[in-house]
Amino acid sequence: MKISSSLLQRAAATVDKYALYVPKSGVFPKGFKVASTATGVKKNGNLDLGIILNTNKSRPSSAAAVFTTNKFKAAPVVLSKSVLDKTDGEGVDAIIVNSGCANSVTGEVGLKDAQTIVGEVNDFLGKGDATLTMSTGVIGQRLQMDKISKGIKQMFQKDSFGSDFDSWLGLAKSINTTDTFPKLVTSKFSLPNGTEYTLTGIAKGAGMICPNMATLLGFIVTDLPIKSTALQSMLRSSVDRSFNCISVDGDMSTNDTICMIANGAVNTSVIDESSPEYAQVKSQVTEFAQQLAQLVVRDGEGATKFVTVNVKNALNFKDAKVIAEAISNSMLVKTALYGQDANWGRILCAIGYAKLGDLASLDPTKINVSFVATDDSEPRELKLIVNGTPQLDVDEARASEILSLPDLEVLVNLGTGKEECQFWTCDLSHEYVTINGDYRS
Amino acid sequence: MKISSSLLQRAAATVDKYALYVPKSGVFPKGFKVASTATGVKKNGNLDLGIILNTNKSRPSSAAAVFTTNKFKAAPVVLSKSVLDKTDGEGVDAIIVNSGCANSVTGEVGLKDAQTIVGEVNDFLGKGDATLTMSTGVIGQRLQMDKISKGIKQMFQKDSFGSDFDSWLGLAKSINTTDTFPKLVTSKFSLPNGTEYTLTGIAKGAGMICPNMATLLGFIVTDLPIKSTALQSMLRSSVDRSFNCISVDGDMSTNDTICMIANGAVNTSVIDESSPEYAQVKSQVTEFAQQLAQLVVRDGEGATKFVTVNVKNALNFKDAKVIAEAISNSMLVKTALYGQDANWGRILCAIGYAKLGDLASLDPTKINVSFVATDDSEPRELKLIVNGTPQLDVDEARASEILSLPDLEVLVNLGTGKEECQFWTCDLSHEYVTINGDYRS
Repeated sequence: MKISSSLLQRAAATVDKYALYVPKSGVFPKGFKVASTATGVKKNGNLDLGIILNTNKSRPSSAAAVFTTNKFKAAPVVLSKSVLDKTDGEGVDAIIVNSGCANSVTGEVGLKDAQTIVGEVNDFLGKGDATLTMSTGVIGQRLQMDKISKGIKQMFQKDSFGSDFDSWLGLAKSINTTDTFPKLVTSKFSLPNGTEYTLTGIAKGAGMICPNMATLLGFIVTDLPIKSTALQSMLRSSVDRSFNCISVDGDMSTNDTICMIANGAVNTSVIDESSPEYAQVKSQVTEFAQQLAQLVVRDGEGATKFVTVNVKNALNFKDAKVIAEAISNSMLVKTALYGQDANWGRILCAIGYAKLGDLASLDPTKINVSFVATDDSEPRELKLIVNGTPQLDVDEARASEILSLPDLEVLVNLGTGKEECQFWTCDLSHEYVTINGDYRS
Repeated sequence: MKISSSLLQRAAATVDKYALYVPKSGVFPKGFKVASTATGVKKNGNLDLGIILNTNKSRPSSAAAVFTTNKFKAAPVVLSKSVLDKTDGEGVDAIIVNSGCANSVTGEVGLKDAQTIVGEVNDFLGKGDATLTMSTGVIGQRLQMDKISKGIKQMFQKDSFGSDFDSWLGLAKSINTTDTFPKLVTSKFSLPNGTEYTLTGIAKGAGMICPNMATLLGFIVTDLPIKSTALQSMLRSSVDRSFNCISVDGDMSTNDTICMIANGAVNTSVIDESSPEYAQVKSQVTEFAQQLAQLVVRDGEGATKFVTVNVKNALNFKDAKVIAEAISNSMLVKTALYGQDANWGRILCAIGYAKLGDLASLDPTKINVSFVATDDSEPRELKLIVNGTPQLDVDEARASEILSLPDLEVLVNLGTGKEECQFWTCDLSHEYVTINGDYRS
């Protein structure tokens, strides 16, 4: 029965995540072009600076963003927030992202550096307050401004911008740090009124080597016209159900940023919160954001498993989420999953200490917990706890089969209401400790 | 500069914690006797059942307890709580503890089993509502009642009780699960009025192998006479500053219990909250509980380092504690400490996402963070952040020296008030993942 951990690790290492999760083609929204370059900030010569530009002039773009709630906000977060506040999210035409240095805890000089970068891009665009900026990488170090300014100039002067697949993939690569694959998702959608639109999303994952944070950056662009207030509430709701529902190690960075630009290049009426299309677009954006967010978990440091924690029939969404999060962040649950141990006691324990808003959400006599297989094997659902009673005769062989799958689901049915929350997490492996225990190199 | 993790682990493994932390003698309060036995519940034949009895008849004893807040409370927790409620903490003369089976999530039959155990001890004592019970070990399995009942009978009928050092050490061993050493602390104190009294404490740590929880059990007994209401508020305050200030992996078990019995065998006036001695006894009990709680961290699964997180000059105790806890539970901080990486960015990041009650507790321009050496080497304090500004020229060699110590301190000076909180934690090692990722054996 006993499988050595090193064996597990080797098995995990043989999965070629790049081949599995990086697309070979894509569809991209009208009116955007992108560029990326290697400025030399990353010592290995990899791409480390990227720009996305809106080229649609038919109407002003809308932009929205959700930022880290960490009280130590990095300079690019402070600056991007102020640009959005100042413009009410209208007329933002560029996002510039650098990797290799987070420009975090760098004080006044760091903020000035971020302003210089944004200013340089604005100059090339010929308008003010038009650029957002993001950074990821080493914390507490200043940006190498000479290299970055040179990189910006070259991209604009040589007109390195393109809208083909390779340009977008390059942009996705340029924001990576210790990610093992670039995260690019593209999709075309139709609305009942006949409108076709496209979403393209890029994210970087919870990865780090240097002195470091598990920064999460992501942006989604679309050619739909959406009012900036509607875009902000749509993005907030989508992020609450996607990027805020993933866990690698429970740490929240100083730089986390998800932003969205809608340039309105598709010729249809502008969507606001009262439009008949609003709900459908919101749901499409949410699903799309979930796909992108899941890629971040798949690339979790040292992860050998992708685990969906599905909390159903809760009294309210918030409590469902708190419970899903407690399970997803529990080191005991995560190590048990790594060890392929059908350890429902740890799951129940995490549910029990989740800090619920409404105690009535949890009735110990109504709770059901199961493991669910993600392949076609039967029985798909292996019941561990039924109406609060542990199943002492759990089929251990079947449990081992399910837990040996690279993808699996933990299903919690609270039986107290109708709300639900899905959370995505990964296991905690020896490799995680190795990566994060390493000296800064 | 790079030290391999396996080298670190080997270094840690060479520390003989038993020799370092288990006393060879002790002082014990008057009027208590203890016994322990191996019932066979633990397959390896180790001690797994222990009883502590109050034999002082000069006045009724006082008892108090602090229980897990996990919503899935184990049967012994439910029962002990009801005994204390019913008796107002007066006249409790026994604690019976078994290890190897947690009697948790066992429903009605589990509660009956716990009642049977308590009833059997009460019968030998010749009085009702006189016994508290605790269990630790495998979750979701029934107690082997035949073995336990036989063990209780044998201890009483053979009169295995003693009050010497070996009897107390046996009791400490009988409540261990995967602890690598028994946790026994004893100390004599004097009060200004000339009264001498003794505290003896026993705890078991966050350890597990089987299907399992990181159960924390502890009890402290004293021969001082203390009113039960005063004892309860004293214990609550002490636990908030000791057992509630330790972290191994942030998971909270269904069985966690700390209880205290004061039998009043010392002939002095009964202490209540208005007594002049109350504050001093409370402070002595708190320091004593801290010693006991620290032993639990020293025996943290896979731990190679003992880390004191000291948050000073906070606006209030609660915020100091929330910040200390965020640092202590951060997987990124814990792996960095394991890797001996002077990674202040991760510490600052954890401070930044701590959920403060009062935002004014944290002023990013006033915060100071240092590593502090625990040996006599100089400079003792290595400043990482001064008034919010990271020290970019940190002496890395000195940082490595401090971080290579088995004991170290992270000092956070918030500079916004006068309250403080100390928290004790350990690092996160490969060994932790190995222990907790293992199949149930």
